[in-house]
Amino acid sequence: MPFDKTSDRTIFTQRESEARSYCRGFPTIFTEARGSELFDAEGNRYIDFLAGCSSLNYGHNDPDMKKALIDHLTGDKLGHALDFHTDTKAEFLTTFQDKILAPRGMDHKLMFIGPTGTNAVEAAMKIARKATGRTNIIAFTNGFHGVTMGALAATGNGYHRGGAGMPTQGVTRLPFDQYANGVDSVALLDQMLSDASGGVDAPAAIMLETVQGEGGLNAASAEFVRGVEKVARKHGALFIIDDIQAGCGRTGTFFSFEEMGVSPDLVPMAKSVSGMGLPLALVLVRPEYDVMGPAEHNGTFRGNTHAFLTATVAINKFWSDDSFQRKLADRAMMLTTALDEVSGMVEGAFLKGRGLMQGVDVGSGELAERICKRCFENGLVIETSGSEDQVVKVLAPLTTPDEIFREGLNILISATREITANK
Amino acid sequence: MPFDKTSDRTIFTQRESEARSYCRGFPTIFTEARGSELFDAEGNRYIDFLAGCSSLNYGHNDPDMKKALIDHLTGDKLGHALDFHTDTKAEFLTTFQDKILAPRGMDHKLMFIGPTGTNAVEAAMKIARKATGRTNIIAFTNGFHGVTMGALAATGNGYHRGGAGMPTQGVTRLPFDQYANGVDSVALLDQMLSDASGGVDAPAAIMLETVQGEGGLNAASAEFVRGVEKVARKHGALFIIDDIQAGCGRTGTFFSFEEMGVSPDLVPMAKSVSGMGLPLALVLVRPEYDVMGPAEHNGTFRGNTHAFLTATVAINKFWSDDSFQRKLADRAMMLTTALDEVSGMVEGAFLKGRGLMQGVDVGSGELAERICKRCFENGLVIETSGSEDQVVKVLAPLTTPDEIFREGLNILISATREITANK
Amino acid sequence: MPFDKTSDRTIFTQRESEARSYCRGFPTIFTEARGSELFDAEGNRYIDFLAGCSSLNYGHNDPDMKKALIDHLTGDKLGHALDFHTDTKAEFLTTFQDKILAPRGMDHKLMFIGPTGTNAVEAAMKIARKATGRTNIIAFTNGFHGVTMGALAATGNGYHRGGAGMPTQGVTRLPFDQYANGVDSVALLDQMLSDASGGVDAPAAIMLETVQGEGGLNAASAEFVRGVEKVARKHGALFIIDDIQAGCGRTGTFFSFEEMGVSPDLVPMAKSVSGMGLPLALVLVRPEYDVMGPAEHNGTFRGNTHAFLTATVAINKFWSDDSFQRKLADRAMMLTTALDEVSGMVEGAFLKGRGLMQGVDVGSGELAERICKRCFENGLVIETSGSEDQVVKVLAPLTTPDEIFREGLNILISATREITANK
Amino acid sequence: MPFDKTSDRTIFTQRESEARSYCRGFPTIFTEARGSELFDAEGNRYIDFLAGCSSLNYGHNDPDMKKALIDHLTGDKLGHALDFHTDTKAEFLTTFQDKILAPRGMDHKLMFIGPTGTNAVEAAMKIARKATGRTNIIAFTNGFHGVTMGALAATGNGYHRGGAGMPTQGVTRLPFDQYANGVDSVALLDQMLSDASGGVDAPAAIMLETVQGEGGLNAASAEFVRGVEKVARKHGALFIIDDIQAGCGRTGTFFSFEEMGVSPDLVPMAKSVSGMGLPLALVLVRPEYDVMGPAEHNGTFRGNTHAFLTATVAINKFWSDDSFQRKLADRAMMLTTALDEVSGMVEGAFLKGRGLMQGVDVGSGELAERICKRCFENGLVIETSGSEDQVVKVLAPLTTPDEIFREGLNILISATREITANK
Repeated sequence: MPFDKTSDRTIFTQRESEARSYCRGFPTIFTEARGSELFDAEGNRYIDFLAGCSSLNYGHNDPDMKKALIDHLTGDKLGHALDFHTDTKAEFLTTFQDKILAPRGMDHKLMFIGPTGTNAVEAAMKIARKATGRTNIIAFTNGFHGVTMGALAATGNGYHRGGAGMPTQGVTRLPFDQYANGVDSVALLDQMLSDASGGVDAPAAIMLETVQGEGGLNAASAEFVRGVEKVARKHGALFIIDDIQAGCGRTGTFFSFEEMGVSPDLVPMAKSVSGMGLPLALVLVRPEYDVMGPAEHNGTFRGNTHAFLTATVAINKFWSDDSFQRKLADRAMMLTTALDEVSGMVEGAFLKGRGLMQGVDVGSGELAERICKRCFENGLVIETSGSEDQVVKVLAPLTTPDEIFREGLNILISATREITANK
Repeated sequence: MPFDKTSDRTIFTQRESEARSYCRGFPTIFTEARGSELFDAEGNRYIDFLAGCSSLNYGHNDPDMKKALIDHLTGDKLGHALDFHTDTKAEFLTTFQDKILAPRGMDHKLMFIGPTGTNAVEAAMKIARKATGRTNIIAFTNGFHGVTMGALAATGNGYHRGGAGMPTQGVTRLPFDQYANGVDSVALLDQMLSDASGGVDAPAAIMLETVQGEGGLNAASAEFVRGVEKVARKHGALFIIDDIQAGCGRTGTFFSFEEMGVSPDLVPMAKSVSGMGLPLALVLVRPEYDVMGPAEHNGTFRGNTHAFLTATVAINKFWSDDSFQRKLADRAMMLTTALDEVSGMVEGAFLKGRGLMQGVDVGSGELAERICKRCFENGLVIETSGSEDQVVKVLAPLTTPDEIFREGLNILISATREITANK
Repeated sequence: MPFDKTSDRTIFTQRESEARSYCRGFPTIFTEARGSELFDAEGNRYIDFLAGCSSLNYGHNDPDMKKALIDHLTGDKLGHALDFHTDTKAEFLTTFQDKILAPRGMDHKLMFIGPTGTNAVEAAMKIARKATGRTNIIAFTNGFHGVTMGALAATGNGYHRGGAGMPTQGVTRLPFDQYANGVDSVALLDQMLSDASGGVDAPAAIMLETVQGEGGLNAASAEFVRGVEKVARKHGALFIIDDIQAGCGRTGTFFSFEEMGVSPDLVPMAKSVSGMGLPLALVLVRPEYDVMGPAEHNGTFRGNTHAFLTATVAINKFWSDDSFQRKLADRAMMLTTALDEVSGMVEGAFLKGRGLMQGVDVGSGELAERICKRCFENGLVIETSGSEDQVVKVLAPLTTPDEIFREGLNILISATREITANK
Repeated sequence: MPFDKTSDRTIFTQRESEARSYCRGFPTIFTEARGSELFDAEGNRYIDFLAGCSSLNYGHNDPDMKKALIDHLTGDKLGHALDFHTDTKAEFLTTFQDKILAPRGMDHKLMFIGPTGTNAVEAAMKIARKATGRTNIIAFTNGFHGVTMGALAATGNGYHRGGAGMPTQGVTRLPFDQYANGVDSVALLDQMLSDASGGVDAPAAIMLETVQGEGGLNAASAEFVRGVEKVARKHGALFIIDDIQAGCGRTGTFFSFEEMGVSPDLVPMAKSVSGMGLPLALVLVRPEYDVMGPAEHNGTFRGNTHAFLTATVAINKFWSDDSFQRKLADRAMMLTTALDEVSGMVEGAFLKGRGLMQGVDVGSGELAERICKRCFENGLVIETSGSEDQVVKVLAPLTTPDEIFREGLNILISATREITANK
């Protein structure tokens, strides 16, 4: 091994682009990971409250997924398979259909695209445009949908938008739920679309996240989501719910929207869909909008068979009955209680989010960053989100055992106490 | 197992989007793969002359990569790691630096992005725009760079462009090498850029593939590539070589351009860079253009640790000395000889491409498709490319043993003979 | 004369494009016009409450302008002069400076462009983009700024936007003053611009009309206009007031904004600026934003010397002291009184607008059209405006003698009575 | 009069935008103009070889047009008339139909738009997009079509393009006739459009000038123009000839294309169409493409009745028979002869253009400017054109009497001699 893995991070500063980011907040070299725990080269243990930004909802190296993958490799099953038919993919499709779609009364088709969330969003936007013959897509303040040019147009974050080096196009931005004092966001949306001189072109789609993960854990009310769907139907637009970060159980149910009484036409998914953090993304497409022709939207890594395999294991293990979902409800309550304590220590702070996707708005990015830094020193990996990075965000694996969850929350509480005491 | 994997493909037609493509030409269910061979559920064996569209340059399930990955899993090493520092990533960076960059006199930094080729191209385009403050990027006829909105603007294929449902922007298209009779493509490019009223905005970058894989195996001459680089330098534009399909040994050297005397500023890579077909993409960036800030272009699956691991094995195994490269030269010759035979059977047919990325333009997509179909019936997986799908394209794993390579080529020759005899 | 001018309109249907519009509502052939009166080929007289859509604020063929123009022609003074220096232009510049700018404490420069309002708006948008290095321009619901591609992006009207045949770009639309119930439009604007993830790119300019002439006579409050200017200053954007329709006395003062306590950076003007309806347009540009280089924004008819001449006469005649302005206040009151009567006859109707730019929203385009049609039958030319053409709009020449004004208003009142009685 | 008109140009520098341009090359104050002669405030006389950039093809203040306009004013005929029917407009339409269209076998409709050339081009582009449902418009190197955002996209000049402050969209640029050595421009155009992966979206229209006035007097061959029309027809695109500068007799016939055997679908016209330099623009539209709805593309000054009047006089006076056209042929020869003499004095110089739209490429903008400056000192107004302003361009009124034409040409010859002698 050509470097001292315990401490030498020179190769990263020397050879990796400045675009690297998370590693800056967690300056160590990680070597192992099990469930909700990370270990570094110096033997330190960390509790993981970031979970690959919600890509590791079932934790690191789940033993069942791991075993299945080792068997798969041992048996020379296909790894990369383009979009060939494979037995592994057939099992995934069947499992997803039987355990996820059917019980929820959904008959969407699965469209596999390049294995990134942004690619799923791009595909959904293209489908909406092709299906309607319209161009405009409505997205909301503080939404985050990716950074490739099509999806970036829908992303609110100015830093990411600036990275494009040119104006984006094809998206109109309107206020999200409860965005502005006194503004009924659904009513405004409907008015601008209904007004023949409102200046908002007839939309191909309206797209939202039910909880804006990067935008600061802004949780939309069911009423808002239903209202937006109704406006979309009224104006002939497709209704897209980007469930990339909030889906796969993160808010307490498999889909973030399933208790809201809505039926999105398109659902981009990624992050935890593979169960193990392997790259996989897909778009759920109502059959009547399955308008992309063969390879019209294509990509080399659409057939990441390893990911289909572990995704199948994940669904079978966690979503065959409602026991996991019930456990999530308990953990969400535990989280709320702890965050209330955190919030109580900071003047003006308040809770954000929903389910296992909650956090505390502490009022400034600087304070949030100091809290997270202290947490890391004390063995907890945790990050911020929001326009000003002012929200301390808990994205623990959904499978975190209670004692580890409690331990992590205690680190967060203590860190906040220490930081605010020093203030 | 809930389906008869030997023959029941219902789940795919029922549940998978119509966007699926390759599976249509190879109507079977694949179950295993080793080296250059695929096996289906009915026990049939196929030689693989598609190699995951050049994503499997070292074949399926290379035993060393496989072993490393099983050990990795067994040891609970990280799988998904965002862009954390890990020992596995450090080894990849060090190996890439020592075995790939240094011997070729390159000091590029590695930027990891969402693990798709299109994302690598998007990142490169954004870098060029940010670095120069310009918007326009020049791409060439028949180029293929991906289907997300930014990259799609640079892609020539009208079917893919049409899928956008709206006009793309930010790219000017000019003729590729030897595109049009009597047109000196470099001279025309330079004239249009030099002309103050030429109507081509000063470019942020000029981007090309040295061999247009999807565009029909059009191989640029070294003279053209050098000429384009010179024009780029003259007009203050970055020079981008998209080496996604042609890189990683496909043309006979690690980079497709390394014997051309050019120094691209940005090199998007994907496909075979992980060695085993796992999703991984990166952009090589000259240090002076490493202008993206932390997370300015980000993505969840930038840290596919499994892929870093197998990529390291691949580099160590194949690129530590020049023996592999020498073997590639032999195979390329073997390929040319066989394709000459194929070409000789079809009136007006001619060879296309370079290295292990060659094919035969048989004049019509219909004929090419019939040849490929017959090949599949005879146990060979092979595909077409080109504007009209008129090129039968050989993309065998670079590691294909001679006897299997010869066997596959014989199937191609026989199939062509049968089809042309029936004509 | 090759046609029977009293009745034969065949040549128009046969030879003029279907794009013709006003003539459809006033199906006759006009032959003469004096002051506020129009005469047709059959000898009918009409009172003109349209005034060339506010291009004829001083009426038709003002005797002083007419005389000056005849003398000019007789003396072989220049007609078309590109942007040459001429004595006529020097007099216009001097007069505009001394009688318009100086008394109002303005030191703007005059930029002459192609003689259309849309061209003035295009120039203003380009100046703002060049001066700030930003792209985005904020415009408002129901704004109308022209139909060439740059200005059209800022125009709210969906029918006109649809005529482009492609998406427009570079403009963000937000709610105008009092647009939506409970929405503080200035506060929302400020919030979206202040929010780092608001998704509205930093604006080059914010542009508004103080009274939206085409949009339905929506009159902004001084508070709104001041608020928008303040937001523009706060966010580094130029502040543009499009005074094309509302300027030149239409609202009671020369500029529509002069009693609001604001200082727009750019003021596009057209319509009545020549005094006689001759094509002339200009942009008032604060000296620090006079950034367009020689001919960078050019146009052949920038030097319509006839128009400079009549514009000079108009300014000298009407704006040398405040007597005209005082008279306008009286007429505005007279207009309000009459429109109150109109409004009282229609359930739910209400007054719109300000100064000599007022109308009645009668609730439906169908009703408004019937009223205008009846008016025409009774000798009054009057038109509608608004998203649904639901506003009957009075744009009489500002110089209309009281008795003719009263006569016209009576026709309007009677027509409304007849139509609503028949309802 | 508030200024010393003989010498005081302060008001211009003080109050007019820096965007002013022509006046910089001709630093005097013009006061009168008759035919082909200009007079300044100091009593100097100049021969006009610029003719309002081809807006004054019939010279200044033609006595018949002048008389008609004085009568019109005296009789209180309408001046500004929106798009009302007027007897004056009916006469214009009838005259244009009978004297221009019918004899040339054309049945186009006339669409009146805002009275600028750029507006005519914008309208034509919108029509093409609406009629075809496509977005892309193909324009050529060195084309000049205006500076509003839609037309600017089609303009090649980089200085003007830069003024937009943002990227333009919707236009693909390809080489004009004889643009590049060895390039068959029509063949390349056809190849790129025929190639399914050529990357040029199916065009709504192909647009060209037969002689590129601003682009350097590049005269297309009839073969090229016919070839482009054929390619347009083949690919379902409308064929647009922008005859704004080259039309109205400038090349020797009323339309610049009428001896080429082509039938453009749309012909934007402006400049000399009013006969007297008054603002007027129109688009000739084949009936089947008359797709703009009422007011869909609108504009206040569409009905410049003064211009309709003088346009009618011009057509009746100059285009009732072929005598004027025959005279133009003589003058064109006289011009060629003189320019040959000019060209002979400058190493490497060569003639450009066609008809009364010819010039000499003297190899550098600096030399061309010195020649024009010397001409002005000697009493001749003449300008440059071309990418580098390297072409001395003669745009004399078509009606210039032979002795004045000869006098002007002699000044040009002498000036060139003086300048080249001093070199």
